[in-house]
Amino acid sequence: MTPNIAPKGSRSELRNRARMLVSCPDQPGIVAAVSRFLFEHEANIVQSDQYTIDPEGGMFYIRLEFDLDNLDARRDQLKTEFAKVADRFSMEWTINRAGRKKRLAIFVSKEDHALLELLWQWQAGDLEAEIAMVISNHNDLRGLVESFGIPYHHIPVTADTKAEAERSQLELVVDKVDAVVLARYMQIISPKFIEHFANRIINIHHSFLPAFVGGKPYAQAYNRGVKIIGATAHYVTEELDGGPIIEQDVQRVSHRDNVDDLKRIGRHIERIVLARAVSWHVEDRVIVHGNKTVVFN
Amino acid sequence: MTPNIAPKGSRSELRNRARMLVSCPDQPGIVAAVSRFLFEHEANIVQSDQYTIDPEGGMFYIRLEFDLDNLDARRDQLKTEFAKVADRFSMEWTINRAGRKKRLAIFVSKEDHALLELLWQWQAGDLEAEIAMVISNHNDLRGLVESFGIPYHHIPVTADTKAEAERSQLELVVDKVDAVVLARYMQIISPKFIEHFANRIINIHHSFLPAFVGGKPYAQAYNRGVKIIGATAHYVTEELDGGPIIEQDVQRVSHRDNVDDLKRIGRHIERIVLARAVSWHVEDRVIVHGNKTVVFN
Amino acid sequence: MTPNIAPKGSRSELRNRARMLVSCPDQPGIVAAVSRFLFEHEANIVQSDQYTIDPEGGMFYIRLEFDLDNLDARRDQLKTEFAKVADRFSMEWTINRAGRKKRLAIFVSKEDHALLELLWQWQAGDLEAEIAMVISNHNDLRGLVESFGIPYHHIPVTADTKAEAERSQLELVVDKVDAVVLARYMQIISPKFIEHFANRIINIHHSFLPAFVGGKPYAQAYNRGVKIIGATAHYVTEELDGGPIIEQDVQRVSHRDNVDDLKRIGRHIERIVLARAVSWHVEDRVIVHGNKTVVFN
Amino acid sequence: MTPNIAPKGSRSELRNRARMLVSCPDQPGIVAAVSRFLFEHEANIVQSDQYTIDPEGGMFYIRLEFDLDNLDARRDQLKTEFAKVADRFSMEWTINRAGRKKRLAIFVSKEDHALLELLWQWQAGDLEAEIAMVISNHNDLRGLVESFGIPYHHIPVTADTKAEAERSQLELVVDKVDAVVLARYMQIISPKFIEHFANRIINIHHSFLPAFVGGKPYAQAYNRGVKIIGATAHYVTEELDGGPIIEQDVQRVSHRDNVDDLKRIGRHIERIVLARAVSWHVEDRVIVHGNKTVVFN
Repeated sequence: MTPNIAPKGSRSELRNRARMLVSCPDQPGIVAAVSRFLFEHEANIVQSDQYTIDPEGGMFYIRLEFDLDNLDARRDQLKTEFAKVADRFSMEWTINRAGRKKRLAIFVSKEDHALLELLWQWQAGDLEAEIAMVISNHNDLRGLVESFGIPYHHIPVTADTKAEAERSQLELVVDKVDAVVLARYMQIISPKFIEHFANRIINIHHSFLPAFVGGKPYAQAYNRGVKIIGATAHYVTEELDGGPIIEQDVQRVSHRDNVDDLKRIGRHIERIVLARAVSWHVEDRVIVHGNKTVVFN
Repeated sequence: MTPNIAPKGSRSELRNRARMLVSCPDQPGIVAAVSRFLFEHEANIVQSDQYTIDPEGGMFYIRLEFDLDNLDARRDQLKTEFAKVADRFSMEWTINRAGRKKRLAIFVSKEDHALLELLWQWQAGDLEAEIAMVISNHNDLRGLVESFGIPYHHIPVTADTKAEAERSQLELVVDKVDAVVLARYMQIISPKFIEHFANRIINIHHSFLPAFVGGKPYAQAYNRGVKIIGATAHYVTEELDGGPIIEQDVQRVSHRDNVDDLKRIGRHIERIVLARAVSWHVEDRVIVHGNKTVVFN
Repeated sequence: MTPNIAPKGSRSELRNRARMLVSCPDQPGIVAAVSRFLFEHEANIVQSDQYTIDPEGGMFYIRLEFDLDNLDARRDQLKTEFAKVADRFSMEWTINRAGRKKRLAIFVSKEDHALLELLWQWQAGDLEAEIAMVISNHNDLRGLVESFGIPYHHIPVTADTKAEAERSQLELVVDKVDAVVLARYMQIISPKFIEHFANRIINIHHSFLPAFVGGKPYAQAYNRGVKIIGATAHYVTEELDGGPIIEQDVQRVSHRDNVDDLKRIGRHIERIVLARAVSWHVEDRVIVHGNKTVVFN
Repeated sequence: MTPNIAPKGSRSELRNRARMLVSCPDQPGIVAAVSRFLFEHEANIVQSDQYTIDPEGGMFYIRLEFDLDNLDARRDQLKTEFAKVADRFSMEWTINRAGRKKRLAIFVSKEDHALLELLWQWQAGDLEAEIAMVISNHNDLRGLVESFGIPYHHIPVTADTKAEAERSQLELVVDKVDAVVLARYMQIISPKFIEHFANRIINIHHSFLPAFVGGKPYAQAYNRGVKIIGATAHYVTEELDGGPIIEQDVQRVSHRDNVDDLKRIGRHIERIVLARAVSWHVEDRVIVHGNKTVVFN
């Protein structure tokens, strides 16, 4: 049994809803300062989740949702003024409008299951994002993607053309999308690419990390004789399969399941785990600290 | 964590694979008689699951998979000869070829999630069935269904036309499909229709039965304040939401989830549970006894 | 997979930690007012969870943990002064010291599993409570309970002596314990008793409510052929098995499990679910609203 | 949600019940030969689970439960005669009486949770074994163990006395118990000891293997930021934490859980997973093949 995928709160009236994420060294008075600031600017806090690591000398994290009449017009001023509060506490922070959907580029190779789940959830209105484009090193899924009215870019990748292919990819996505989703994209992303999207590239790895890093994790799992398999969604860093974990889930298997069975079962886990992680990311529910995540859900 | 959906065993070489389901009053010697029969007919048992309720005077159930060279040509004779064994033990039994996919008619109204999951699993080769047609009382999902190359029949149903609509439905399905799947079909099926497909109509109910029988189960669940919601796939009988349960699954919810959230979360449970139940049915894994099921998985 | 039972936060240094629970009609400025109050009184908020039903005209709930030097000496004054803030917002509220363990009376009949789990978790330091006494209508578990150094009161209950027995029970518990836990106590609690401990009596019911209300739920579950069984911890109200649900959990069963198997499997669910609910109650994580609970965990 | 711990089938009348485990290279006719043998010897098969890896040229595994009048007197002859069938198919096989409980030695250090769960399930009649003794390198748990009427042997282990300690242990257990359970025993078992109990030493490792092999797995899990933790019961081999996995289970955690929380949550997983694995072992449900297990449950 697993946490649900559902974005919380009614979705009809998000025009004046904002989401604030804050992290800073802990000290007394942070909640008071933030909530007083919002109150004095006539914002109404509708949801608030807060977490402190080790009260004495640790880190403080908070996620707030608030409503503010006429948000669109007032947001810039609000941010300018909040910067003063933030400075005082050495905060890293963002304020995003809930009504402005994040733009995603989905990278995919030949397997369609993780992509399909995202497309369905998007079409059903469950994924609060705009899928700006799909980029693939193969042409196989063009028909599927275009049937959803989404642009499909085929950028082949070979050992020789890798650098050039990446330049083409970057041209398509830099300043054009908010995040990149690797929905079973079977190519290594270069450090340079990662730099452009630090903590904004989400990958699905088809094992319960850190078990079975690298290639053929289902074969590895079969050979080890595990009784449960899993999938892991994580932000991509330079260390292969080593970035901050956003979400994991698992399913029971048995001696009756061969490698093909594990793959088939695993596909269902992968698509659910990736969809959850992407939802949480686009709803500003994830803060990265070091190599870990705080997920407010 | 839940049992997997995966059909067991390799699927590439099913041409000579048969599946035998047997139920009868328990008595000594049944396994010996069946397995000796198969051995003497040169069949090789590759899987066998057996279950006895109350050894003394109870019921005996077995599911066998066996390989037999040239199965297609020899199946009729095999069945003729097995009938003698079956008579001796008062068996109810079936022998189906694994290579012959069951034909399904899917009934649907306006919601697409349960249907989509079946179509996707079918397309991915995970659902060992032939989807012969989709029948709907609305026209909304025609484009989707036809994009999979599957015939779509729009048969509107009103209070006045119910009987006539059912005649049209029966004409399409009787002797043409092996089973009917109600993938969120929001009409009551008549006793007459059920009679044609006894224990061959699978419905998905959007609650953890027997909790929240009838309409608006998510609203009922919300009002009761449950911490877990579920879905139930069952064979349809004359008693509303009262037929033999094939599969159930659940997901944790919290006070934060409103009725819309429960519906959204529930959709994910419904589609998984229905797909599992349909898979088990078409793979001859389910025996109905009284108002319950034996599921060999 | 289920939420964990663990009390959050370090437990070593709780002397100056307080827990505040607040519910009131929602309006702008509540978080600001509360957090400002705490800041001005030199309290440091270390954890905060908040939840609003329907921002416009709904209800507001918050749970805060804060540290305050010299809490013991300053708590009364803090409460006196907070009352003014509370009045302004029509709040219902409590401020409890984390360091002051709640006192529990556990009621039990003959089955020991739910009791044992509580005793073990208490002994292991996982249950932040003081088990003040065990009261039973039988004498069977005296040895066990007394081996933990806990007083055991045997108060037999028959149809004739029910009223008198209850008087004896009330004499033992009123003003002596903070909450009553029914750990498989097989007697109905009277409305009068309930009145003394409104939303402070926790019962474990051995089914996934609202399925299988009343007696012999495992037999009911067996007869219905469910594929999953559960247990439910809830506050006791006058309606049998109808009070606000605190926690539920479930486990998969199959056709192979007879009623005795369900009971055995169910015992494991019951003890876990009850222990979780009691933990959350004693850690001030539960707010009752209407017939439902908000659980901050 | 997890498979249940419960031994299947009624437990009252096991006097004439036997359990047969068979593994051999697959070939046609094995089920027929075994079931015919049992039928001709007047045994009634009440349960049968069979599994074949790769029908062509693979391995065949079967577990049978059968009833035979006067089992005790006839068992030796039955085994002598079955040996002929077994030879023909190169079988490895056992036939055990269900009524003869296996004798266990439990090894433990200072932590009591895994031990306690076994003692409690044993006392409740859920663990079909005889706990012959507890052996510990510390004296801490003597009182607890002896309160259950079970002999407690304190055998201290230091770097200097390790070999001698092991001699004392072996003297206590060889030919005296059927299996050894390491219920959080914090010493490495020597190859020589393992040799005496090949595939009969069950250890609980406090991580989801193969993640976090070795020491301090909860600290490792915390540092990696996993969202799910687990425990693994496995047979002990010479490779540390590398033996055949019998059972695993997991629980969701979050960023709020520190290392102490993980330990506390993990204790609950460990005790459940170990109890399940031990139950399955003593009920002859586990066959080891290579470095993996077939578990018939």
